[in-house]
Amino acid sequence: MNRRSFMRRTAAAGTVIASAPVIVAPANAAEPTTNPQKVTQTLSRYLVAARFEDLPEPIRKEATRSLLNWIGVAVGGSRHEAVEIALATVTLFAGPPQATILGRKERLDIMNVVLLNGISSHVFDFDDTDLTTAVHPSAPVIPVLLALAETRKVSGPDFINAMVLGIEAECRVARAVTPTMQDVGWHATGSVGAFGAAVGAGKLLNLDETRMSHAIGLAATQPVGLREMFGSMTKSFHPGRAAQNGLLAALLAEKGYTSSLRGIEAKRGWANVLSTARDYAVITDDLGKHWEISRNSYKPFACGLVVHPVIDGCIQLRDENKLTAAAIDRIDLAIHPIVLELTSNRTPRTGLEGKFSVYYAAAIAIVAGRAGEAQFTGALVRDPTVIALRDKVQTTVDPSLSQDQARIKVTLKDGRVLDRFIEHAVGSVENPMSDAQLDAKFADLAVDILSADRARHLMKLCRDAEHLTDAGEIARAAAAT
Amino acid sequence: MNRRSFMRRTAAAGTVIASAPVIVAPANAAEPTTNPQKVTQTLSRYLVAARFEDLPEPIRKEATRSLLNWIGVAVGGSRHEAVEIALATVTLFAGPPQATILGRKERLDIMNVVLLNGISSHVFDFDDTDLTTAVHPSAPVIPVLLALAETRKVSGPDFINAMVLGIEAECRVARAVTPTMQDVGWHATGSVGAFGAAVGAGKLLNLDETRMSHAIGLAATQPVGLREMFGSMTKSFHPGRAAQNGLLAALLAEKGYTSSLRGIEAKRGWANVLSTARDYAVITDDLGKHWEISRNSYKPFACGLVVHPVIDGCIQLRDENKLTAAAIDRIDLAIHPIVLELTSNRTPRTGLEGKFSVYYAAAIAIVAGRAGEAQFTGALVRDPTVIALRDKVQTTVDPSLSQDQARIKVTLKDGRVLDRFIEHAVGSVENPMSDAQLDAKFADLAVDILSADRARHLMKLCRDAEHLTDAGEIARAAAAT
Repeated sequence: MNRRSFMRRTAAAGTVIASAPVIVAPANAAEPTTNPQKVTQTLSRYLVAARFEDLPEPIRKEATRSLLNWIGVAVGGSRHEAVEIALATVTLFAGPPQATILGRKERLDIMNVVLLNGISSHVFDFDDTDLTTAVHPSAPVIPVLLALAETRKVSGPDFINAMVLGIEAECRVARAVTPTMQDVGWHATGSVGAFGAAVGAGKLLNLDETRMSHAIGLAATQPVGLREMFGSMTKSFHPGRAAQNGLLAALLAEKGYTSSLRGIEAKRGWANVLSTARDYAVITDDLGKHWEISRNSYKPFACGLVVHPVIDGCIQLRDENKLTAAAIDRIDLAIHPIVLELTSNRTPRTGLEGKFSVYYAAAIAIVAGRAGEAQFTGALVRDPTVIALRDKVQTTVDPSLSQDQARIKVTLKDGRVLDRFIEHAVGSVENPMSDAQLDAKFADLAVDILSADRARHLMKLCRDAEHLTDAGEIARAAAAT
Repeated sequence: MNRRSFMRRTAAAGTVIASAPVIVAPANAAEPTTNPQKVTQTLSRYLVAARFEDLPEPIRKEATRSLLNWIGVAVGGSRHEAVEIALATVTLFAGPPQATILGRKERLDIMNVVLLNGISSHVFDFDDTDLTTAVHPSAPVIPVLLALAETRKVSGPDFINAMVLGIEAECRVARAVTPTMQDVGWHATGSVGAFGAAVGAGKLLNLDETRMSHAIGLAATQPVGLREMFGSMTKSFHPGRAAQNGLLAALLAEKGYTSSLRGIEAKRGWANVLSTARDYAVITDDLGKHWEISRNSYKPFACGLVVHPVIDGCIQLRDENKLTAAAIDRIDLAIHPIVLELTSNRTPRTGLEGKFSVYYAAAIAIVAGRAGEAQFTGALVRDPTVIALRDKVQTTVDPSLSQDQARIKVTLKDGRVLDRFIEHAVGSVENPMSDAQLDAKFADLAVDILSADRARHLMKLCRDAEHLTDAGEIARAAAAT
């Protein structure tokens, strides 16, 4: 399995792999100090010592953007059938009402809430993405931090620090085995997610170095997620279960449960068992000098990333020219080859099939001016106006384009031709969503679940998270009323 | 990694791999019908249709022996530090007192009880073993069945049928990837355990074929257990977590959570992701014609199997000749080479080190006449009488011996020489523990936890399980008073 095959299949799941810039401290970069016998220990030592005060301001800021984006998708996904089924299931044995199921009224014990919030936040495949590894960094980590913040005293700075470090651990471990682990067949978000959850929880529990290593070992022994499950409810189960596995790992380690101190790198440890290759330097080099969360990305549109450049361009042309479907004679798209490999459905019949049709995507972008979860419904896919416009879309493959590029040409009935080249689609690392765009996405997702006032309050709590005295306030504010 | 290397390392963990006879229906054996595209479906179809009435009497009988042996080790392990820590941990979030923690007074919700009973039953490494795969078949399965039997109406026949079928599924799946999955680094009991738990639970929940396949898919996506964890508390965590994973899988599938219908055999399914080779015919051939539980084995001694022939022979000579340590001049052992590879510690200082000393094992067998968990303590390892006898033991490696053979020669101070050749150690498939020996093992394990009356009552319930109206009675009778 080569890298290209991983890229294709990953893209099918809504994610593409790309190289991305990294924030690296400029001077005095240390020589690589990787000791392949002490990967877990080196990582644990750093994590235990790392303080909120060490985080540069852009990293703190990106953490609040990740938090806001993630809370929005979790609230938005909270009524999905997968969440309803999982809730009905865990209610059979759940504990006391300790923590909030985001976007809902029910409260359950922290361990079961973590599963549900992990599922709801990934069920639309609309959460944040690390484009290098295809890991969705927040889904396994934030549920655990919120649950602990509702049962123990957790300050805003401690919350943000634990979130950054959990994501740091899971993304570094993932990069060390990318793309070979994914090629073996693991869903990276599930197979590394427990590391993020265990580390995030471990920080809030103030684990010492040895206990942090045991927590990492307990996480290592519980990878979740075969890629075979893509397309079923079990895909969103993966980050939820990974979150539970990491939380349990940290809580057991806190009380003295023993594991391996070399869970990642041992001969029969995680990296050797799950992957055919590994680069431990990626895990241990430059700790505290660059942060993985700096290249987190957020999806503006509720479909696979490969269609995003087309949607971005169509919305720009629509908004700038007040386009209506009736005015359009034809639409010509020049696209990367992978777009047709994955989204060539000319006649989608369901909302989900609409996500796999670049023709529908272009049409709905112009008709609706947006492409959130609400724009991928059976009703809209069958709407005569949308269908008429969809059938005017023509595609040309252009291998010289990169995956986040597209060229859109709209020919109007009055003879005018509008043209737009998208260099980097919105939501890419090079062209990130603005704060205002993240707010709009949040509001869209929360619209039928939280009042507008409540949604605004919740967004404010996310943006101000590092100044909160009690981070549990975020979770409580996300409950449905 | 060749098969031999797996055998060695497995033996280090207390298990050896051996070929073993299989009960196969004699006539009309069907032609292999394996469709590599429909492994999960074929297995699910069989499991859903299989009835207690189809089980031959020797299979029912072996199930009750497995049940009795397993309950004994779970009760015996229930005060281990690993269980204490896990109990203190889950108490932080556990649900209502629905089910019994075997050997204890506390009751918790079914999901958390399943973890604790899985840990306690494996923490001594004294539970049943499938010698072909090194799977400990009961530990992931029985906790789930007992928990359900305490919350839903489960008859004895349904309980035994679910137990046989859960073990059938996990052992067949394990055999299909043995020894390559173990060579990759997976602890088989954890990586296949969720299949057993999901299938056992699925039978008690009366899942239809599609839901049974979804349950198997949800189990497939949650393998537990790196072999790196051997030697730490996390080894016994593996069957406990596997039991939880399987129970959750079945409960989710019951309510309609979707997974893959080809979780085992798909290109990115369980067998391809976890192993480098696989033989699906082992999973689907002769279903309902032979039963994996027929070759289950039980350990008479609380240490690695490689030392068992020596202990067996020493106890026989002691009992037949009323041997005392004081009467012995020297002991000569002829042993398989692996015995010294794994248990050559001449001067053990702790109970655990005693398990890795064939010298101590021979001595304690003669001094105590048994080798249960109570014979591997620091006090006995440091006992002067035992040390004096231990130092009279000499070993000779004899490569012509098999792993379950040994020759013991005891020279007495009065000049007599006693000799015993062990053809198959007690506890091997060829020389299974008798019912009386299983009872004695049970009584030993339960001695400080249950009253003698209560232990006898519990053994009777296990032996009579198939006649019980309410199988939950077994769990309740195993509570400490």
